[in-house]
Amino acid sequence: MRIALAQLNATVGDLEGNFNKMVEAYRRALDAGVDLLVFPEQFLCGYPTEDLLLKQHFLDHNLELVEKFAATCPKLTIVAGFAEAFGGGCRNSAAICRDGEIDDIYAKNALPNYGVFDERRYFEPGTRPVAFEVAGVKVAMSVCFDMWNVGQLTEFLRPLGRFDLLLNISASPFHIGKIAKRREIIKRCAAGFRCAAAYCNLVGGQDEIVFDGRSILANSAGRIVAEAAAFEEDMLIADVAVMDDGHTRIEPIGPPVCPPESDVEEVYRALVLGTRDYTRKNGFSRTMLGLSGGIDSSVVAAIAAAALGPECVTGITMPSRFNSAETRGDAEQLARNLGIAFHSIPIESILGPFHEALSAIPGWDDKGLAYENLQARIRGCILMSLSNQFGALVFTTGNKSETAVGYATLYGDTAGGFAVIKDLPKMLVYRLAQYINQRAGRAVIPAAVITRPPSAELRPDQKDTDSLPDYDLLDRILKGYVEEDKSPRMLSEEGLPSDVVHRVVRLIDQNEYKRRLSPPGIKITPKAFGKDRRLPITNRYRYDRH
Amino acid sequence: MRIALAQLNATVGDLEGNFNKMVEAYRRALDAGVDLLVFPEQFLCGYPTEDLLLKQHFLDHNLELVEKFAATCPKLTIVAGFAEAFGGGCRNSAAICRDGEIDDIYAKNALPNYGVFDERRYFEPGTRPVAFEVAGVKVAMSVCFDMWNVGQLTEFLRPLGRFDLLLNISASPFHIGKIAKRREIIKRCAAGFRCAAAYCNLVGGQDEIVFDGRSILANSAGRIVAEAAAFEEDMLIADVAVMDDGHTRIEPIGPPVCPPESDVEEVYRALVLGTRDYTRKNGFSRTMLGLSGGIDSSVVAAIAAAALGPECVTGITMPSRFNSAETRGDAEQLARNLGIAFHSIPIESILGPFHEALSAIPGWDDKGLAYENLQARIRGCILMSLSNQFGALVFTTGNKSETAVGYATLYGDTAGGFAVIKDLPKMLVYRLAQYINQRAGRAVIPAAVITRPPSAELRPDQKDTDSLPDYDLLDRILKGYVEEDKSPRMLSEEGLPSDVVHRVVRLIDQNEYKRRLSPPGIKITPKAFGKDRRLPITNRYRYDRH
Repeated sequence: MRIALAQLNATVGDLEGNFNKMVEAYRRALDAGVDLLVFPEQFLCGYPTEDLLLKQHFLDHNLELVEKFAATCPKLTIVAGFAEAFGGGCRNSAAICRDGEIDDIYAKNALPNYGVFDERRYFEPGTRPVAFEVAGVKVAMSVCFDMWNVGQLTEFLRPLGRFDLLLNISASPFHIGKIAKRREIIKRCAAGFRCAAAYCNLVGGQDEIVFDGRSILANSAGRIVAEAAAFEEDMLIADVAVMDDGHTRIEPIGPPVCPPESDVEEVYRALVLGTRDYTRKNGFSRTMLGLSGGIDSSVVAAIAAAALGPECVTGITMPSRFNSAETRGDAEQLARNLGIAFHSIPIESILGPFHEALSAIPGWDDKGLAYENLQARIRGCILMSLSNQFGALVFTTGNKSETAVGYATLYGDTAGGFAVIKDLPKMLVYRLAQYINQRAGRAVIPAAVITRPPSAELRPDQKDTDSLPDYDLLDRILKGYVEEDKSPRMLSEEGLPSDVVHRVVRLIDQNEYKRRLSPPGIKITPKAFGKDRRLPITNRYRYDRH
Repeated sequence: MRIALAQLNATVGDLEGNFNKMVEAYRRALDAGVDLLVFPEQFLCGYPTEDLLLKQHFLDHNLELVEKFAATCPKLTIVAGFAEAFGGGCRNSAAICRDGEIDDIYAKNALPNYGVFDERRYFEPGTRPVAFEVAGVKVAMSVCFDMWNVGQLTEFLRPLGRFDLLLNISASPFHIGKIAKRREIIKRCAAGFRCAAAYCNLVGGQDEIVFDGRSILANSAGRIVAEAAAFEEDMLIADVAVMDDGHTRIEPIGPPVCPPESDVEEVYRALVLGTRDYTRKNGFSRTMLGLSGGIDSSVVAAIAAAALGPECVTGITMPSRFNSAETRGDAEQLARNLGIAFHSIPIESILGPFHEALSAIPGWDDKGLAYENLQARIRGCILMSLSNQFGALVFTTGNKSETAVGYATLYGDTAGGFAVIKDLPKMLVYRLAQYINQRAGRAVIPAAVITRPPSAELRPDQKDTDSLPDYDLLDRILKGYVEEDKSPRMLSEEGLPSDVVHRVVRLIDQNEYKRRLSPPGIKITPKAFGKDRRLPITNRYRYDRH
């Protein structure tokens, strides 16, 4: 039996477009002599469609197109994920299509409702296990989270008896380290059920999430025999044969793909894919960003150029009297190295009249934070104005460390449409800069950008470390408090300095409002700001002894 | 048996502050000869605490304080809502405290996971019904949503046998029409169980939600005999007596309160409470807003003055050459009528240099939308700068109709901290303006502000109707598409003009990104933008025939 896992990039809500991709994959599979063609979870409508699922007409449209697909593609057995109207609500379902019809429907049983997932808001759990036979191979169905609790899955599938292949269709988001967990669970399933396992994952960016693909085939000894491409569309094809001893052998067709070599390469490719998809799926082709000559905007510019092509990226430097000649030069050098358009709009001629107009209010002055923030806000205005005029999406350049402690100006440097490196702690931004240069084989990002102490350049001789602890310490506190939900006391007990921990935790808590009003960005870590971490803005919780 | 429903205003995360309020209520209840004192759902920690519930130390802190409370207040039977650590997760629980200890714990069984609710993300459902006796009255416990499916509740409570009083502690958010549903369900419960019902609701604002209080007592004939105050703290006290025939009589102590007389009064009071609580609970006492002389900013200024006191409100008018002398005069008149501070900062002296600086980029001009938006962005910058300098929270003034179709400038008039009337359709803003004047007994909002055709005044002779349909039509489309999830086809079939429906629906879909980057505001309708309606930003769904 020949199986094909169609690891494709769906667009949320683009039912006709996704449908067309399915038909095209069917034609390729036919040519390749495939018996069983598999699409990822919810492929027809994209994932996650969120409250679109509350619209009856959206669900009607789903069913209509699955039926049309089955009729259009009658010559194979096909597993197609879609949103199925059920009772007054809906289910996260897979249609098993053959002979021009929907032959059976499997509905996901285990519905994740944590992290970025809200499946209990939308779906009723399926209660009936489903298996089907293709060319003598008995295939048991599962959808994504169904597989993650092997004990529960074993109970659920028991009525099916013995099967040869466990199929899982997924829309499993990327974060650093996720692939190792997936491999582990697939091996455990294969070994536990003594069957082969085929895991077909979605690929592509959707708002804050990137699906990384990397579909997997494992044999019944629990050994992974093939993986599909990472962060790209791919079709993984293999022959499945049930041996006389009951074992299932899997032989992939075609050469193996090279997996990413390091976690920083993974991060790079996740950012490129997520940035490209957010931009294009939202109807933009061009982007614009402020270039300060600092490391954050340099890295974002490099990602933007890789994602959209340098001809679609414009860097704007907006110097004031507080910006050094060095950083201005580095911004221009970076733009030249990347081959992106570059313009300079000095802000002094705007800052002056702005300050003068504000001086009408007694008490206004140019000595404090408000005046510093005004500079960032003028820059935000410039970028948004040019975005409006030229139809380019503005990328903001804040990293996770700044975003956490609110070291940013609301409606200033947070003004834009997409926050590319929002989930990258500062130390990872440095590693990524080095990787970008190493990948290019030259200093695309000028060396001085990487070695110069970071500064917002909003007042004379400013350094980030005037306001914040060193980034390596800050990032360790963030990991414990944000990603692991540890208390300040636990972090102190682990050896982090208690006064710094309390100060940082307080800043993180106080700046929830600023994060809520900042653009979405790509989830990279196990817990990102956004849907993944939902804290109230109004929140007086303090940690006296906890 | 004397019962007291302590309808108090909790602050999310302020465990010590909420604890102190509970102890104070206990002292008052002791003085009033009460036997059973009841607090709302999750009162100790506030509601909703969202991902605070994922922190083990937060749950530990909850338990510590409930135990301390029981020990501090030993002389009554007390029902206290809190977040209870349970297994690796937690439960939405009520501690029954007496004799200095936690005597029993009831955990909510029915967990809402729709609309603004995410309880399945956090809570394990309780599975054990709980009853207790106070002064000869048998009381059965329930928490909020437990009560909303009477059939399910009947099954769940069956093991308890007969009881005299059904107690429900709630954190039930306000929207227009909600109180009628609550009264209905309470009457049905009382009649169905042939018992009295006591419903103790939270009061106060929390981010986008307002809890309206209006706790309820019904006798066993299903008649409502008392309601607590709307949108205020209150303590509703009554004597409960079980008659020889098994019926339960309830006699309230103290004079009855006057309920709001109309839905527009409800809306007014919800906005005042929600605005006051968002501001103060986030540590602000002062607010600032742009006054254009239009109806939206006038209404927001009136709400702000009522919520915080006029001495804490500053109105800023920021005229350009496109603002008429009439609107400028009306803005000043409004400020005088309200008794709030007022300043004028003309923007022409900033707009000129801004335009000149942007002209460095070939293709920039002052003829289109970008130049219009620049004016709004300069105003946003001014307000945010003054907010920074003086520590005042900026209120934005967009209504639901504008917010829906994106008739606003991102990082311009959407720049601020709180969007007071974000969930008010434009026609309701008009009704509210009239109510405000009627309530004051004079034209606080100048008559011309109400009668003048609305305009953004960003180019000569601009009218909202140049870009949008009439607001009464727009609001009807919004109600159908946003609040009722109807398809464009259904709306056309109901008699709305098909071309306008399609245009408006397209605008609503396309502007999700703008809403996501705008400040929170108070939920007023059955479905508000925000947690209540979660659409992807990247969303290509189109409605050809649906």
